[in-house]
Amino acid sequence: MTDFGIEDTYVGVMKAVILGIAPSTQLVDLTHGIPPQDIRAGAFALLTSFHYFPYGTVFCCVIDPGVGTVRRPIAVEVATREVGPYYLVCPDNGLMGPLLEHVPANSSVVLDNPTYQLPRPSNTFHGRDLFAPVAAYLSSGLSLTDVGTEISPTSLAHLDWPKPYLRNGIWHGSVVYIDHFGNLLTNIPARLITPPRLDWIVTVEGLEIRGISTTFAQVDSREPVAYIGSSGFLELAVRNGSAKEAWGVEVDQKITATEPTNQRR
Amino acid sequence: MTDFGIEDTYVGVMKAVILGIAPSTQLVDLTHGIPPQDIRAGAFALLTSFHYFPYGTVFCCVIDPGVGTVRRPIAVEVATREVGPYYLVCPDNGLMGPLLEHVPANSSVVLDNPTYQLPRPSNTFHGRDLFAPVAAYLSSGLSLTDVGTEISPTSLAHLDWPKPYLRNGIWHGSVVYIDHFGNLLTNIPARLITPPRLDWIVTVEGLEIRGISTTFAQVDSREPVAYIGSSGFLELAVRNGSAKEAWGVEVDQKITATEPTNQRR
Amino acid sequence: MTDFGIEDTYVGVMKAVILGIAPSTQLVDLTHGIPPQDIRAGAFALLTSFHYFPYGTVFCCVIDPGVGTVRRPIAVEVATREVGPYYLVCPDNGLMGPLLEHVPANSSVVLDNPTYQLPRPSNTFHGRDLFAPVAAYLSSGLSLTDVGTEISPTSLAHLDWPKPYLRNGIWHGSVVYIDHFGNLLTNIPARLITPPRLDWIVTVEGLEIRGISTTFAQVDSREPVAYIGSSGFLELAVRNGSAKEAWGVEVDQKITATEPTNQRR
Repeated sequence: MTDFGIEDTYVGVMKAVILGIAPSTQLVDLTHGIPPQDIRAGAFALLTSFHYFPYGTVFCCVIDPGVGTVRRPIAVEVATREVGPYYLVCPDNGLMGPLLEHVPANSSVVLDNPTYQLPRPSNTFHGRDLFAPVAAYLSSGLSLTDVGTEISPTSLAHLDWPKPYLRNGIWHGSVVYIDHFGNLLTNIPARLITPPRLDWIVTVEGLEIRGISTTFAQVDSREPVAYIGSSGFLELAVRNGSAKEAWGVEVDQKITATEPTNQRR
Repeated sequence: MTDFGIEDTYVGVMKAVILGIAPSTQLVDLTHGIPPQDIRAGAFALLTSFHYFPYGTVFCCVIDPGVGTVRRPIAVEVATREVGPYYLVCPDNGLMGPLLEHVPANSSVVLDNPTYQLPRPSNTFHGRDLFAPVAAYLSSGLSLTDVGTEISPTSLAHLDWPKPYLRNGIWHGSVVYIDHFGNLLTNIPARLITPPRLDWIVTVEGLEIRGISTTFAQVDSREPVAYIGSSGFLELAVRNGSAKEAWGVEVDQKITATEPTNQRR
Repeated sequence: MTDFGIEDTYVGVMKAVILGIAPSTQLVDLTHGIPPQDIRAGAFALLTSFHYFPYGTVFCCVIDPGVGTVRRPIAVEVATREVGPYYLVCPDNGLMGPLLEHVPANSSVVLDNPTYQLPRPSNTFHGRDLFAPVAAYLSSGLSLTDVGTEISPTSLAHLDWPKPYLRNGIWHGSVVYIDHFGNLLTNIPARLITPPRLDWIVTVEGLEIRGISTTFAQVDSREPVAYIGSSGFLELAVRNGSAKEAWGVEVDQKITATEPTNQRR
């Protein structure tokens, strides 16, 4: 996952470096379409995707506005008794912050062993020179402590990540990601709005949406709909249309969800 | 093939699901750039591409405006004595309609066996929860009847697909797809305009193009050209330019092709 | 590498053809985002990327404004005692010109053996019908002379490629590529501006940038910065922003770099 886009050769070159080290790697593009330097969008993309990958997967994630500064390049192993392990190789800038709230870091290292990096690394493309080679070596079976020096998982950067809160019986949240279809993904997890019922009221930018649906099909084409999205969070959309365009909404837009019981008070 | 675009993680997550089931799958992105919910564009893309893939290929195709509604999720085996087999996993919405006119369905199933789907499937992302896992299991060697219950191939959804027709010696067709270069792909197959000769007359939006060329090079740069495209259909283009932009043409634009013999009448 | 974009099925079909011939090929998209028919951008992308790929890599490169004309389809082996071999399969239009200045061609062939091409090749899609199958056969172990007839490497097309020059102690160069972030990549290689020092002066479109930095972090956010880029050439950027947008600059923009010693004269 990167914010490099795919117009340039940056992603292709990272893959070339990986395959030079670990020729039989099975490569998957999670996405390279994270908006430039948008750590929060990257963190959300990672949070909602990682658990669909096979255990043992190495995630090489480069959204790195601080490349060449003091932020640390790191590798982390996350696992619980039931989940993982997964490996993440990335800058220490909070990109994996929300993920770590779900699956804790077992161990983490700062990437300070030049043996497993490209010689003469640049100051502007650590994706190619540090993160790709380390990811390739981990995928080949090396351990974290081969590629760097242990650091405390508690020292890893946090992310200024909006959390939903309950006030006067109303959940207050915000839009944290807008997808290709113009659907709005919020930070309100499904468990807070379960069961989805048609007597919830969701508001966004003055618009009142009645009910949390279980399918798009519960509303007519071009009508607004609130539903529990496939990523496990409350989503707002226009059926067969773009909510982003229809409502002129951007990331960080505030939204509310009022429980049926609260409406009755 | 999907209409998910590649900015989000949807495609990456589908691949993660596939590789969790069938780790050594060779994945190919046919395209994820089908305009959102444009079943006809997806059908044309599939029709003009499938026969270049090795026999045994499983196509996982998700252009699915009806996700979560009553449209059936299906898997189909197509083959003739000379061609295939190919396997298609997709919603039953006509996406494979034009393809089935060329290679018939041997057998088809509705995907109703939860064993070969993700647990607790969402109502909005069957690509990840149904189609990807079924495609992975088929690619691993399971048979259609393992993943679902047989349905009659004659029950598969048709597509409202424009067909060219001959009237007063003139072929009437339409633009069915516009590519990245702005070239216009029509629904007139090569066999109707063979041999390509310079005394054909093609019209589009008031413009008269003289001749069906065999190469772009038969006209000057920036000039209009009609030719038999690489997909096996009549195409209209501006050499080294974009016909879409130059002529302001959209999909469904009517076009005609007049045979040399008819001109003489 | 192509200029086909990824909205259409062209790239997917080329991969299908390759995998039909060489099923275990490890495919990497270098990029398909080269601006349509922009041979120079493709040449720069190839020049700055190829050496990160494992030796033996076959590059299938299709930026081909002359498809269907007399330009030759070719395959070339490049190598020195220290580097390579690499194989390139592409139209003979200068696309590999700058690369050949760094690693010479050992041998080259014109692709005239129909055995290793698709039957009945089209006149408009040699990527699918000629270049992809030849690349697949080379990757399977066939030799250049299997797929074509030897031609002299000295006969290969050159590229009208701007070169930097020194006049009155000032290096004159130009922008040759603009990346996804809006960073400007110039044709001035690192060795001409080594060591990067803060008393160089770089000018672009009336703007004077003081110093060649080693990291972005040497300037404040949103400030202009000149630095030796990860591709090995002088780059100009706006930190955390787009120089292309901020300065309204396009490819071919002239730039200068004045050495510290010359300023003192």
